[in-house]
Amino acid sequence: MSHLPNKAKLIHSISRDSLPRAFKAGALHCGIKKNGAFDLGILQSSSAGCVSAASFTQNIFKAAPVVWSSEVQHRSSGGASALIVNSGCANAVTGKQGMIDAQAMTTAVNDQLGRDNSTLVMSTGVIGQLLPIKRITGSIAPLFHATREDEHSWMDLARSFMTTDTFPKLRASLLRLPSGRSVRVAGIDKGAGMIHPHMGPPSTISRLPHGTLLGVIATDAPVSSTDLQQTLDHVVDRSFNSISVDGDMSTNDTVLAFANGAEGGEKLSGDDLISFQTQLTDFAIDLAQLVVRDGEGATKFVAVNVDNAPSYSLARQVARSVATSSLVKTALYGQDANWGRILCAVGYAPLSGIPSQSSDPPIDPSKVTVKFRPTDGSPDVRLLTNGEPETVDEARAAEVLKMEDLDIHIDLCIGEETARYWTCDLSHECEYVTINGDYRS
Amino acid sequence: MSHLPNKAKLIHSISRDSLPRAFKAGALHCGIKKNGAFDLGILQSSSAGCVSAASFTQNIFKAAPVVWSSEVQHRSSGGASALIVNSGCANAVTGKQGMIDAQAMTTAVNDQLGRDNSTLVMSTGVIGQLLPIKRITGSIAPLFHATREDEHSWMDLARSFMTTDTFPKLRASLLRLPSGRSVRVAGIDKGAGMIHPHMGPPSTISRLPHGTLLGVIATDAPVSSTDLQQTLDHVVDRSFNSISVDGDMSTNDTVLAFANGAEGGEKLSGDDLISFQTQLTDFAIDLAQLVVRDGEGATKFVAVNVDNAPSYSLARQVARSVATSSLVKTALYGQDANWGRILCAVGYAPLSGIPSQSSDPPIDPSKVTVKFRPTDGSPDVRLLTNGEPETVDEARAAEVLKMEDLDIHIDLCIGEETARYWTCDLSHECEYVTINGDYRS
Repeated sequence: MSHLPNKAKLIHSISRDSLPRAFKAGALHCGIKKNGAFDLGILQSSSAGCVSAASFTQNIFKAAPVVWSSEVQHRSSGGASALIVNSGCANAVTGKQGMIDAQAMTTAVNDQLGRDNSTLVMSTGVIGQLLPIKRITGSIAPLFHATREDEHSWMDLARSFMTTDTFPKLRASLLRLPSGRSVRVAGIDKGAGMIHPHMGPPSTISRLPHGTLLGVIATDAPVSSTDLQQTLDHVVDRSFNSISVDGDMSTNDTVLAFANGAEGGEKLSGDDLISFQTQLTDFAIDLAQLVVRDGEGATKFVAVNVDNAPSYSLARQVARSVATSSLVKTALYGQDANWGRILCAVGYAPLSGIPSQSSDPPIDPSKVTVKFRPTDGSPDVRLLTNGEPETVDEARAAEVLKMEDLDIHIDLCIGEETARYWTCDLSHECEYVTINGDYRS
Repeated sequence: MSHLPNKAKLIHSISRDSLPRAFKAGALHCGIKKNGAFDLGILQSSSAGCVSAASFTQNIFKAAPVVWSSEVQHRSSGGASALIVNSGCANAVTGKQGMIDAQAMTTAVNDQLGRDNSTLVMSTGVIGQLLPIKRITGSIAPLFHATREDEHSWMDLARSFMTTDTFPKLRASLLRLPSGRSVRVAGIDKGAGMIHPHMGPPSTISRLPHGTLLGVIATDAPVSSTDLQQTLDHVVDRSFNSISVDGDMSTNDTVLAFANGAEGGEKLSGDDLISFQTQLTDFAIDLAQLVVRDGEGATKFVAVNVDNAPSYSLARQVARSVATSSLVKTALYGQDANWGRILCAVGYAPLSGIPSQSSDPPIDPSKVTVKFRPTDGSPDVRLLTNGEPETVDEARAAEVLKMEDLDIHIDLCIGEETARYWTCDLSHECEYVTINGDYRS
């Protein structure tokens, strides 16, 4: 079974100039992971006046670090300036002790910083197991010593996020704003939803790693805490919340943002703020796509584009319905131009649980056009035009479906809004089945 | 890859005494299927005063037979007395000609019956192709000649529903009511969602069969048209709408009910009507489960039971979320007692799009208990008790997970309502991947 090739090329070297100023990063191995890899990381603003924003899983079963970080965000009124993260153990389904441990992690960092309520926490890894909390708290002081403001420390931090990830996911960028100002942003993420049975020996078969998406974005832009939260909500909807690997929502999913204003000057507003949000969205889309490209066993990277919808929410509803349809994803793996499955998923989108606006006109089947757009710039392959099936050139369709990247375009023709969703084909679950089946027999 | 064994034992011989009186059934091959199998069937009441009820797909893209049957139900005020069904071609995504063809099928039957608006229509098979309508309408007269009131004609009718099904799905039963009266019910269904790439030669790769659930229930009970519709709505929610093979909703899904009152006497009411509804629900659950057991490549039949919920709708929401989780279904195929994935699916149930009652209290993670209940009567395997993970006896869990039938019990401990959902493990999609991959290379 082939995989998305060349994952190594997805590791970008980061220019020091594009890193946000006055953020220190670092990581070390404290003993959670068995293989000696980095499993504890820290990010802290060395500039005063840092603000924070957060987006947490909507799952009812929230892991302790999610519950506790949410509390810290509340207590600090969005003024946290540090992040402590561990991998190897998710501190999920761990009851009262889990809450004590999450709090202990942040307290140990706060003690170093000399400030209360300054630290957010994220954990990822196996669930149902307690953290080795003494190893963690005992490593906070050495971890502080290891922090630096260079690209190597950021890469170390990215490595400390990894569980089943096959490469560290770090990006940094200089954002030029309309007024002529420039700000810097760096981001790390990990996950999600990969199934990787190699990780657990048989005796820990019910302690398999739990697919989780974690992300952090740090910028030296001066932004108010309210604007940062509104920006993050907009960004997350269009990036991390618009990818799907397996359709399940973890107990630990968290995306955090820090803005320390080290660039200086007035808080962003007006066109600068709008441009910041737009550029940050593109930046986060790039980060989020890395997660899809790292899907275990995935052979295709699929972009679902829904155009000309009456609202963004309806466009997103349709894009998500198609991107999470098992039948669509299996057909894509099978390199089958099965427009029927795409159409079917468009048709049940309003029942899929993603809210749209009640004022939206209903989707009109006789206006829907579906096509594949080859990523090499060659002409589209039309599958359905105004609700009528096209006679598909099978040879041409097969050619397009062989490509690693595939763009599906769905035109609803009842408005002007657009949404995009990114997913992979369904082979990864089959890979799991095959590996796990062999593994246990 | 193993399959659910002994499907032959799922074909039950039907006793003539349990068949509803005054229903004639029949089928023939009219030339839609390439292999000469039955592809056109009819069911008609030979008793006057027959009423009808219908439950149609909620997909926006409704196939022509769905749109037209809905119109017939409306025009006849639930007084249709016949069904014409074809397999091999779904008459879906066929535009105006599809509507003309669906109407032509019912008109041909109405002409034989000598009554307008008396016939409902169902189609299943490939989509995007027009029906060979002349072959169909030209076969209606011979089809009428072939109808009989015996168990063989019912079995013929069941065969005419089949597409990727590996066996005909027919049940009949005598229902004893509290007042001492007895009525008879027979039911047929087909589907659903199976992926069966053997069906299409390469040139018709985008004309793969479209997984559809079709069902019909006929009874000689005297029931008013309104009561029959209310009964069917209750029954379908708890049976056909509580199964999942692949989670997608077809453009053709239809379940119809006919009640011709041939048993005689007063219309059912009071306790008799309640008992009729309860027994019909169990009858339909049996029929619906046959569809799950016929899932291509499925190795496990999984019942998800949610107990002690504050409302049926919340219980159903949770059951459906677990039953449709790809990660849960893959773990079950892998014989992995992964309570984390089950818990995770419970946790995002409120976001899954199935409405629950707003007055419901929220699910309390610290009260949730999850266990496997072996179908051989041996003790439960507890995975999670009041939100805390159990130390699972892996050898014992492995033993239970090897069984073909698996019961997952989820106790929410915040009410008294119960819901059940039935599904299979996820291997069938992988089988599709394997077969289709080989097939095209």
